[in-house]
Amino acid sequence: MIDMPAVQDLYPDDVAHCFGCGRLNEAGHQIKTRLAEGGTITAFVPEPFHTAIPGFAYGGLVASIIDCHSTGSAAIFAMERDRLVIGTDPSPRFVTARLEVDYLLPTPLAEMRLLGRLVEIEGRKVVVETDLSVDGVVTARGSAVLIEIFGDQFGAPV
Amino acid sequence: MIDMPAVQDLYPDDVAHCFGCGRLNEAGHQIKTRLAEGGTITAFVPEPFHTAIPGFAYGGLVASIIDCHSTGSAAIFAMERDRLVIGTDPSPRFVTARLEVDYLLPTPLAEMRLLGRLVEIEGRKVVVETDLSVDGVVTARGSAVLIEIFGDQFGAPV
Repeated sequence: MIDMPAVQDLYPDDVAHCFGCGRLNEAGHQIKTRLAEGGTITAFVPEPFHTAIPGFAYGGLVASIIDCHSTGSAAIFAMERDRLVIGTDPSPRFVTARLEVDYLLPTPLAEMRLLGRLVEIEGRKVVVETDLSVDGVVTARGSAVLIEIFGDQFGAPV
Repeated sequence: MIDMPAVQDLYPDDVAHCFGCGRLNEAGHQIKTRLAEGGTITAFVPEPFHTAIPGFAYGGLVASIIDCHSTGSAAIFAMERDRLVIGTDPSPRFVTARLEVDYLLPTPLAEMRLLGRLVEIEGRKVVVETDLSVDGVVTARGSAVLIEIFGDQFGAPV
């Protein structure tokens, strides 16, 4: 899977600085989201200091990774709709209008796997649901509403 | 206000390592939440690399700070209910069961101020709503459900 192009690899340079998912943010997480059977997938390995209670990941990290995985997933789903090719065509850029996270169990401080599924897509709006798991156990569920932005629109309300 | 004790200052040592709010996490944000008129208050200054689109804070940071501000706020509201003194008595420790964030406007990459208000408190459960603002403009709203944990309970589902 690692050989497949990630949607973040072709974010336009001027919107590729996000701490969570921008390839141009050297201090950031640089998550990579790819098309997977029936949806999208992101893997992420936290750092030792990303703790809540020792041994578990802090909730803000879980929310952050779900957030950026969701914007990447929205871009992938929009590209599929528009018959664009991930890794060849420029990726559209989405921002989050609403994020919901249910913390079902404490998330161990280990590699997280996020699986995204498309709930709704209409014009510039995409709704994505995500299961975050560690070692096959789903510890958090996310739901996000994403809106596509264009170069001159980020300053405007979404 | 900075002279008032923060609720995180007296989290027991074994639950004071959270990346967002633990005073013992040297790599973390170490946010401080205090009692304010009618609710709670947290201030946070992001780093230059905490960007979404350049000039704005990334959504994961906004969610993270709302999350830890909410757990701190829950502790404050529980202490008020139980007539405990912030800064003198040990602070109770809450974790997040559910987090919702509405991103109303892009959040400038500048000092954020979070105001929390109590929505519900019953036993171990507290519901907190938060307005996050920069320069007096509310850019995000949060709602969180927090559950008090005890030393031997973190591994159990909340």
